Amino acid sequence: MLYGAVETGGTKIICGVIDETGELLDILRFPTDTPEYSVEKIAGFFSNHDICAIGIGSFGPVDINETSKTYGNILDTPKLQWRNYPFVERLKTKLNIPIIIDTDVNCACLGEVKFGAGQGLDNVIYITIGTGIGVGVVLNGKTLKGMLHPEGGHILLRRNSLDTYVGKCPYHKDCFEGLASGPAIAERVGRPAFELEEDDSAWDIEVDYIAQALSNYVLTYSPEKIILGGGVLEQLHLYPLIRNKVKEYLNGYIRTPQISNLDEYIVPAKLKGNQGLYGAYYLAKTIDKKG
Amino acid sequence: MLYGAVETGGTKIICGVIDETGELLDILRFPTDTPEYSVEKIAGFFSNHDICAIGIGSFGPVDINETSKTYGNILDTPKLQWRNYPFVERLKTKLNIPIIIDTDVNCACLGEVKFGAGQGLDNVIYITIGTGIGVGVVLNGKTLKGMLHPEGGHILLRRNSLDTYVGKCPYHKDCFEGLASGPAIAERVGRPAFELEEDDSAWDIEVDYIAQALSNYVLTYSPEKIILGGGVLEQLHLYPLIRNKVKEYLNGYIRTPQISNLDEYIVPAKLKGNQGLYGAYYLAKTIDKKG
Repeated sequence: MLYGAVETGGTKIICGVIDETGELLDILRFPTDTPEYSVEKIAGFFSNHDICAIGIGSFGPVDINETSKTYGNILDTPKLQWRNYPFVERLKTKLNIPIIIDTDVNCACLGEVKFGAGQGLDNVIYITIGTGIGVGVVLNGKTLKGMLHPEGGHILLRRNSLDTYVGKCPYHKDCFEGLASGPAIAERVGRPAFELEEDDSAWDIEVDYIAQALSNYVLTYSPEKIILGGGVLEQLHLYPLIRNKVKEYLNGYIRTPQISNLDEYIVPAKLKGNQGLYGAYYLAKTIDKKG
Repeated sequence: MLYGAVETGGTKIICGVIDETGELLDILRFPTDTPEYSVEKIAGFFSNHDICAIGIGSFGPVDINETSKTYGNILDTPKLQWRNYPFVERLKTKLNIPIIIDTDVNCACLGEVKFGAGQGLDNVIYITIGTGIGVGVVLNGKTLKGMLHPEGGHILLRRNSLDTYVGKCPYHKDCFEGLASGPAIAERVGRPAFELEEDDSAWDIEVDYIAQALSNYVLTYSPEKIILGGGVLEQLHLYPLIRNKVKEYLNGYIRTPQISNLDEYIVPAKLKGNQGLYGAYYLAKTIDKKG
């Protein structure tokens, strides 16, 4: 049995064919283009493989409510050509197999829970910090949907007292994403984040914002583990700093074995950038079981 | 079939006997005392009724993980006599019927979802602002537990620029509870919150903190409805102000039918202070179905 997994991002789309054991047999990457062209490419790739279902991790906002009439539609995105595009419906028309969709970050979280750093746990959150900031959530073993889907990258934080940068979010200016995404760091310091030395004071500001956000997520979601991914969080020197600052913010209020051992509580993703694809694969497998 | 429902708070304990139709047949209220005395009172009350199960909504922190060896124990509470007290176990020994426990605010949320302002919905949050601030969460129709349970009353907020009050939380000083609980308002203005005129500028500060918190909950939990309770939120003149400020903070980022109609999205609790008891009753009914 073969499964299709798709991850659609703002700049690129990745498609994978994965077998029942989890082996990635074929992969295609291409730049995100118009929805028609993208669907054509995705369908063309999968039509060469005998797959039984597809899981998609999509950029948002997207309708992931399976009971909704507009399930699988891209919603009110700034990518105008994709706005209100019936993504799942169009792909289904071309391939005529079951398709399930969730957000890119929910899929990444699910991938890590099922195959990566969150294995064996039912309540895990995944935060990616790169071009944007996204939060994926698995609670009771399932991705969180709710009214729409989590948008935890945009929570309001306290401005660090040393930070005079105005913030980059077009909606909220200085929300978490506006203050701490890769482009926000770059704009604050005038050069790309990856060029900063490990001891650059810009990292103290970054760590403060990340730790504030993680502390708020601990208090709201009560996750059993926090998994971090994305370009900025490949800077492994940040992890001890983040853990210390989270401890400082929580200040002894939450007393659990997990919080006593932050080294194993706040951890990097294990799937090396494939977490979204593997989450989508897992979703595809759940369809198969239903049918 | 009769069910027992218990709500234990910092100052008082309420026990109710409720029949299958939801009618409250008998009720007992008494001040929270030592755990032994309290358990004696609870057991004495219920032993006069032929109840088949008990649901408890308890102050926290409390072990609500049904698979845990210490399920039903009060955890690291500042109420020293209750610390590590095996609440459910002791009550079970006396009454020999099934007992299920969750937090007071999770029960209040569940009560509103099943019988009050959240009926028909699967994803709802309940915030109570009184002596403290608590957040109860129902997602996919079930209360959120996770590593411990939500403690969303303690999230970090931005200090309002007009507010010079230091904050009242013993752990975080100026977290949400530290800045916006009833006692925090009273300490800020030098008299009880209920004595303030509706146009007192202290309400602007309070509304700002509540709206920041609700905006962050919208972004993290993506609830289908937000239900408000507790003494401070009996001030109905605050609701339009809170809704306007939430709209301002979200600033068009979340576009859903619910957010377009905040009058029906951010609403007061319907069960007039009995939401916790009715949530506990609902939990008791779920046990019965299992057995």
